[in-house]
Parts: sequence; C-alpha cells; structure tokens
Amino acid sequence: MTPEHGDGDVERFDPAQRVAELEDAWRRTAAELENVRKRCARDLVRGREQERAAVASRWLPVLDNLERALEHASSEDDSVVEGVRAVLDQAVGVLADLGYPRRDDHGRAFDPAVHEAVSTVSGEGLVPGTVAQVVRPGYGPDDDLLRPAAVVVATRAS
Amino acid sequence: MTPEHGDGDVERFDPAQRVAELEDAWRRTAAELENVRKRCARDLVRGREQERAAVASRWLPVLDNLERALEHASSEDDSVVEGVRAVLDQAVGVLADLGYPRRDDHGRAFDPAVHEAVSTVSGEGLVPGTVAQVVRPGYGPDDDLLRPAAVVVATRAS
Repeated sequence: MTPEHGDGDVERFDPAQRVAELEDAWRRTAAELENVRKRCARDLVRGREQERAAVASRWLPVLDNLERALEHASSEDDSVVEGVRAVLDQAVGVLADLGYPRRDDHGRAFDPAVHEAVSTVSGEGLVPGTVAQVVRPGYGPDDDLLRPAAVVVATRAS
Repeated sequence: MTPEHGDGDVERFDPAQRVAELEDAWRRTAAELENVRKRCARDLVRGREQERAAVASRWLPVLDNLERALEHASSEDDSVVEGVRAVLDQAVGVLADLGYPRRDDHGRAFDPAVHEAVSTVSGEGLVPGTVAQVVRPGYGPDDDLLRPAAVVVATRAS
C-alpha cells in the first residue's frame, strides 16, 4: 500500500512545469482527436462495405434456387421460362453492379482461395488441376470474394 | 493590414494566464474528442442502415419482374412455375428479414405518406378513400418505408 497524496502533501507550485504538462496533455488529446477522426472515416467506409456484402450475400440462395427452378425447364420456348431467365440475368446484373460479378471459373486452375472443391473427376480431355465443372457459381472478384464457387476438380486418372 | 506580432513584440509572460488558457484549450479539445466519438458511433449505425436500404432496394425491380413473369403463367401446375413461386416467396422473406416486409395495403385508408396513387376508380362495393388495388407492392413498415406501394384509390362516383 502506497500512501495517498493527501491535502497535507502540498508541493511548491511550479508554473513552468504546469504549463509543460498542460501543453503535453493538450497535444496528446489533439492527436487522439485526429486519430479518432481518421479511424471514424475508415470505419464508416468499412462498415458500409461489410453491410453491402452481408445484404448482397443474402440474395445468393435466391439466385441459386431460381437457377435450379430453371434447370427443370425443358427446351421449349415457354414465355414464363423466358421471362424468368431474363429476371435471373437482371439479378446477376444487380450483383455485378454491387461489385460482385458472377465468376466464370470453368477451366481455370483450381485455387482453394477462390474455389471450394466438392468432388474430383478424371477423364479424357480434362486437364488435371483445373475446374472441370462449376456446381454452384461463385460471386465477386478474387480479392473481394462474396462466395467461392463450388467446383468439381479434374485429377490425373489413378 | 494589421501589424504582425514579431519577435520584437515580447509581452510579459504571465504563467497563471497561460495555465488558464491551456486548461481551457485542453478542455475544449477533450470535449470535441468526446463529441466526435459519439457522432462517429451514430454515423456508423446510420451508414449501415443507409447501405442496407440502398442494397435492398436494388432487388425490388427483380422481384417486380419475377412477379410479372409469373402473372403470365396459366393455372396449370407446371413444376417450373411452382419452383419460381417458391423463389419469389423466399425473396420476399429475405426482404422481411432485412427489415422490409412486403406491405399489404389493399383496403387500407389511402395515405400519401406510404402510398403512391397511380389512378382512381369508383364502383359498387368500393369504400372511397381506400386502396382499391395494389398495382406494385410496397416494402417496409410505415416508419421505415423502402418503397411506397403504387395503388389505385377508390373515389366517390361523380
């Protein structure tokens, strides 16, 4: 236990020292103010980016299901199917506008940073180590991936 | 032109006055720091809300077109149409989760704050001043409207 500095401990008031202390305290507070301002601007940008990504990603299951529904469509030129295909294109366009273009990973070298391997396949005409099939498309550029593509990877025949 | 205070203008240094000035300056900077911190937290919340609304509203034309495409569907129980209807329900659910439930304005009193009148209609069984038909659904609660409903308003027969 250290003794408290009570009222009895009156030190001789040194104005020059007090001025130096206050200048230092003021300078540090001003520096912190500047830091907080800068951090705030950064956080605001990052917060918006995070929110944009979070909201955009909520729509991916909707797009997946829309595509799945269309897979069941036969090749006949049904006007409903045609309309829904146009809507899917529109939805893909909205995601692209938001900064998350649909990825075309077919044939690209498999990269675990942007691809999620769900299975492998080997066969003639397939280049080992490349994406043989995209099972579920990915969205967003390599450096701002919204969702990796789920892919089947080509392997050397064993 | 005011004369500059050059080196020749040395005033008598008053330590007590300098201490008071510094204390005041420090106090004001500290108060501003506190304000900036509070404003920053508020701006961050508001920035996220704005971004959420902006991104969510980008999907409304997609939903509108999906509904329009389904309107062309006949009553036959086509599996594609059934699948697409389920996707539309899912999309409406995503908007609701984001805080923008689909509005059901049919029969409600017309309110220019949340309804956009596109035309009027009069006829038997219609209550004047109410929404007779929703042409394009609105989204979001009254106090956080993402988009007003476009409606046909019932009027007294002239």
